[in-house]
Amino acid sequence: MKLYKIENPNFIKELNEDELIDLAADIRQFIIENVSKTGGHFSSNLGIVELTMALHYVFDSPKDKMIFDVGHQSYVHKILTGRAKDFDTLRQFEGLSGFQKRYESEHDCWEAGHSSTALSAGIGMAIARDLNLQNGEIICIVGDAAIMSGESFEALNYLGSIKSKVIVVLNDNEMSISKNVGGLSNFFSKIRMSTRYRHARDNYTDFLGHFKIGNIIYQTTKKIKDHVKDDFIEDNIFSEFGLDYIGPVDGHNFNDLISAFNMAKGMNHSVVVHVHTIKGKGYPLAEKDHEGRYHGVAPFDYHEGIKNNHSENKSWSAIIASQVKKTMYEDDDVVVITPAMTYGSCLKDLFKEFENRCFDVGIAEEHAMTFAAGLSNAGKKPYITIYSSFLQRAYDQINHDIARMNLPCLIGVDRGGLVGPDGDTHHGVFDISFLSSLPNVVIMTPCNAYEAKCMVNTAFLHFDKPYILRFPKGVIKDEETNLQAEIKIGTWDKIIYESSNTLNIITYDYKVIKVKQLIEERNLHINLINARFIKPMDETMLNQLYNNHQKIIVYETDLMIGSLGAQIAHYYSIHKMMMDIDYLGIDDHYTPQGDLETLLDYEHISIDDLYQLIKEKYEKGTC
Amino acid sequence: MKLYKIENPNFIKELNEDELIDLAADIRQFIIENVSKTGGHFSSNLGIVELTMALHYVFDSPKDKMIFDVGHQSYVHKILTGRAKDFDTLRQFEGLSGFQKRYESEHDCWEAGHSSTALSAGIGMAIARDLNLQNGEIICIVGDAAIMSGESFEALNYLGSIKSKVIVVLNDNEMSISKNVGGLSNFFSKIRMSTRYRHARDNYTDFLGHFKIGNIIYQTTKKIKDHVKDDFIEDNIFSEFGLDYIGPVDGHNFNDLISAFNMAKGMNHSVVVHVHTIKGKGYPLAEKDHEGRYHGVAPFDYHEGIKNNHSENKSWSAIIASQVKKTMYEDDDVVVITPAMTYGSCLKDLFKEFENRCFDVGIAEEHAMTFAAGLSNAGKKPYITIYSSFLQRAYDQINHDIARMNLPCLIGVDRGGLVGPDGDTHHGVFDISFLSSLPNVVIMTPCNAYEAKCMVNTAFLHFDKPYILRFPKGVIKDEETNLQAEIKIGTWDKIIYESSNTLNIITYDYKVIKVKQLIEERNLHINLINARFIKPMDETMLNQLYNNHQKIIVYETDLMIGSLGAQIAHYYSIHKMMMDIDYLGIDDHYTPQGDLETLLDYEHISIDDLYQLIKEKYEKGTC
Repeated sequence: MKLYKIENPNFIKELNEDELIDLAADIRQFIIENVSKTGGHFSSNLGIVELTMALHYVFDSPKDKMIFDVGHQSYVHKILTGRAKDFDTLRQFEGLSGFQKRYESEHDCWEAGHSSTALSAGIGMAIARDLNLQNGEIICIVGDAAIMSGESFEALNYLGSIKSKVIVVLNDNEMSISKNVGGLSNFFSKIRMSTRYRHARDNYTDFLGHFKIGNIIYQTTKKIKDHVKDDFIEDNIFSEFGLDYIGPVDGHNFNDLISAFNMAKGMNHSVVVHVHTIKGKGYPLAEKDHEGRYHGVAPFDYHEGIKNNHSENKSWSAIIASQVKKTMYEDDDVVVITPAMTYGSCLKDLFKEFENRCFDVGIAEEHAMTFAAGLSNAGKKPYITIYSSFLQRAYDQINHDIARMNLPCLIGVDRGGLVGPDGDTHHGVFDISFLSSLPNVVIMTPCNAYEAKCMVNTAFLHFDKPYILRFPKGVIKDEETNLQAEIKIGTWDKIIYESSNTLNIITYDYKVIKVKQLIEERNLHINLINARFIKPMDETMLNQLYNNHQKIIVYETDLMIGSLGAQIAHYYSIHKMMMDIDYLGIDDHYTPQGDLETLLDYEHISIDDLYQLIKEKYEKGTC
Repeated sequence: MKLYKIENPNFIKELNEDELIDLAADIRQFIIENVSKTGGHFSSNLGIVELTMALHYVFDSPKDKMIFDVGHQSYVHKILTGRAKDFDTLRQFEGLSGFQKRYESEHDCWEAGHSSTALSAGIGMAIARDLNLQNGEIICIVGDAAIMSGESFEALNYLGSIKSKVIVVLNDNEMSISKNVGGLSNFFSKIRMSTRYRHARDNYTDFLGHFKIGNIIYQTTKKIKDHVKDDFIEDNIFSEFGLDYIGPVDGHNFNDLISAFNMAKGMNHSVVVHVHTIKGKGYPLAEKDHEGRYHGVAPFDYHEGIKNNHSENKSWSAIIASQVKKTMYEDDDVVVITPAMTYGSCLKDLFKEFENRCFDVGIAEEHAMTFAAGLSNAGKKPYITIYSSFLQRAYDQINHDIARMNLPCLIGVDRGGLVGPDGDTHHGVFDISFLSSLPNVVIMTPCNAYEAKCMVNTAFLHFDKPYILRFPKGVIKDEETNLQAEIKIGTWDKIIYESSNTLNIITYDYKVIKVKQLIEERNLHINLINARFIKPMDETMLNQLYNNHQKIIVYETDLMIGSLGAQIAHYYSIHKMMMDIDYLGIDDHYTPQGDLETLLDYEHISIDDLYQLIKEKYEKGTC
């Protein structure tokens, strides 16, 4: 079938089972071909093909609203709602988003990017529907890892206490991002594995076998419901929350899926439909992947799969993790915590080497941060690493449980700054602002691998307060660094400095290297200062710049409000030092998706924009 | 018994049952007498008397660590650990804290203030203990509302998957702050109410009756555990999380409590002990209170109880709620959301009048915010109100689900600024900083009741984006305001202004009124500007001040970093307008507890400090 020709999902209701199976194969092939070219979320979309098709078979989008939690697994939904033709622009600037976006289609009724918001949003929409006396189902599709996150629990608990109906589709693929953790995960395993499950499943399939695809509206009466319950729906966590439960359903069997969704549709109250899917289904390397390598992928060779990176450059995450690992050999008290980011944060080696001292708590940023505080409070030395954008989930905990109690730890803020194709929900551009106002903390932004490793050392050598080490997405050249090398806290580094130069660029992280190249290549007579501590700032150096009557450009690629530049402005103003400062940074808006270079141009904060500003200042004679 | 003479809790182990009962009565009397004089958390501490005593009877603090979730119910623990003598200073500046504080006693091993951190912290301490091959129990005492909050769920789920032992004491008083909500709450009710419960409880009491108080260390073998389970421990949510369960236990019966805790102590794995207590026990008015009036109290008459406030002044919360209520009569789409703060946010009338349009979601700030986003996305007009300090829990949701999607709503940020006796965990001094960097939002800070009501109108009349209305704790004079009165967005108000005056005070909220009084009383020739929008700022007015060569004092009582002053400094610096600005605000640290006036003095940000600064500027001739 020509997927490009699909305009809306109505056609799917006319297909018979064989045609559905053929279409599923086409969609799977399409995803493998396209995503291996563009990069994107891979395994989760291969796993959800039949599930999504069955949803569109049974329900009527957009009247019935489908909310895909996080939204990274909505590719099949996009294909079925007329967006196959846009897949060559996936995750590119002004191209198709990798998540649901309301501006893209009337079939996208919600937007996310962060985990575990679908149920809360769905409940809001369901209550609005009922207050308005409208019709239409609300269907929230939530992964098994996302449903174990705090906000999902809060929403499940609330859903059990209200009358408004939401259909919760639990897309259980046993490893939403990497391996699931938690007691509930064991419970899911038990459900999946036990003979009781198999037995129940057979009964269930028999039971559903009576219905024909496509023409079932199952009128659930109390009596039938009870009968169903007694037969094969055992008591479980969802019934504790006051919710009805259908499952587990084979997520790759149309017959089962359609019957289950029809049953859910026929009910007059909320229900959880537990669907068992295989992540990566149809691409053997992805099916076998238990680490999450095929979760989000860069372009890769269709036939050969993802290859190991053999370049001499390593990711910032890997470089910092390697230094933490080195520290762990020397100091038994160092422990490591991650909220489901073992693969993304390059902690695999650490978990392998120090199994007892490394903790993956699942998608649970709040718990992760307070857990780290508890470990620190008991004398351990936690390294906890979280993506900047997801750290937003633990703002209260880093503030009240870590900073307020001044509990020593090293917090890695990974993917700081613009991240590229994941777009506005993933750019880590807020953290400098919201972390800078926390008392007691040190915030460090290394410019290269050596400095990053020295900063790891600095934190563990002092270990007297919370140290925040913020680093971007991307790769750099690794440098061997011994465990004693440290950096004096609060000192900035004059990378290029002549007191006769009038103009100073203050910047941090990898931008330091880029600006150095610019200055050298263009032979500019300009100073360059590496603001490697966002907090505390180097006040001695700031005073010196003032005393020398120098001018400043603060060059940032983060949100300007509350960032380093704003803090420098405030510092000089407090001390009544009148300074001539220019600022480059992101204006007061959300930045869209795109590759990094395109986004820097879009925001007028590229190295070239910096160069233009410098030229302007010289041409105007203000320098 | 002379409670003042208690130095540590060891003595309690020597008491017989009658003596324990007598001591409980003394403690209860002590709490009623003292807290009615000083104010403080009342009902929760009366409810937990026997429970806390039994914990100290069975466990050995400080070797065994007791973490009281939130910590507001730790008064009995404080009395038993030698702090009765300090209760006349409760919640006062440099006095006894109303929460656990590590600096107060070796028996306080953790600090909180916000709900639902105890389990995560306890797990951290338990894992540290096991890694260090140390002994000692970790006991987390968590209320039935707090255990339904997201972070508690995350921690329970994690606890079920690890070997380290934590004893979870579920202090189930059926209404932790106000009435519980959620499916799980129904489950708790069922447990409490069902005949099965009563039956189980009888068996349980019989079973435990075989043991004598004080000399039981119950060696749990697999066999006995299974027997116990079969007998009276039914499958429930805790077993879904992989945790063992003992209960429900009568929380006012020493025999039951001590036996249950001994049984928990004897186990080699984590267990939940479900204790049923009566909030307010021993003070009839508090026992009967289902609204939360006796949860946190100001000083009140011991014999007469809390009286209704008949002053002409009303709280900011009440004034704003009343205007929202007025709007609800006119506009069916307006809905109200609160995370367990119906009483504190003065929403009782709204819930009564508009039962179907008001939603208390329990202690679930994350869910509350995304739920509001879902309602707005479906065309409803949500008013969601959260205390500033608790809003920190929903930072990611207000950023990504509200501001990023630009979903219209009115967000009340209650208790903005210093709150007084609850101290560092409750001061709402971070929100201006962390909210200001959010794109799309309007942030409003009214100076009086009229302006507050106009701002409610402004939000609902425009309703094109998220409006944040930030207001402090405390009371003001109410003013009738019709629903059409609005304020032009982003305009500041010249309260006192003569262009010949050199100096301008820029301030906001109730401080505007106080500064006006100062200027009038002292007959100062100074301008006063009401910065009633933190975002957007009134750039026209800022430009005018620059053009008129005027000087500024930004007077704030919030954290200075990232606050209005910092933003004004940044604005002028960006536009190369060299301005003479002084700043009053809270330095880079956490502010302790105390009454508001004392704290303003402590932080050097009182009206008198402002006056001194003004005088200095005039004396130095800089004005």
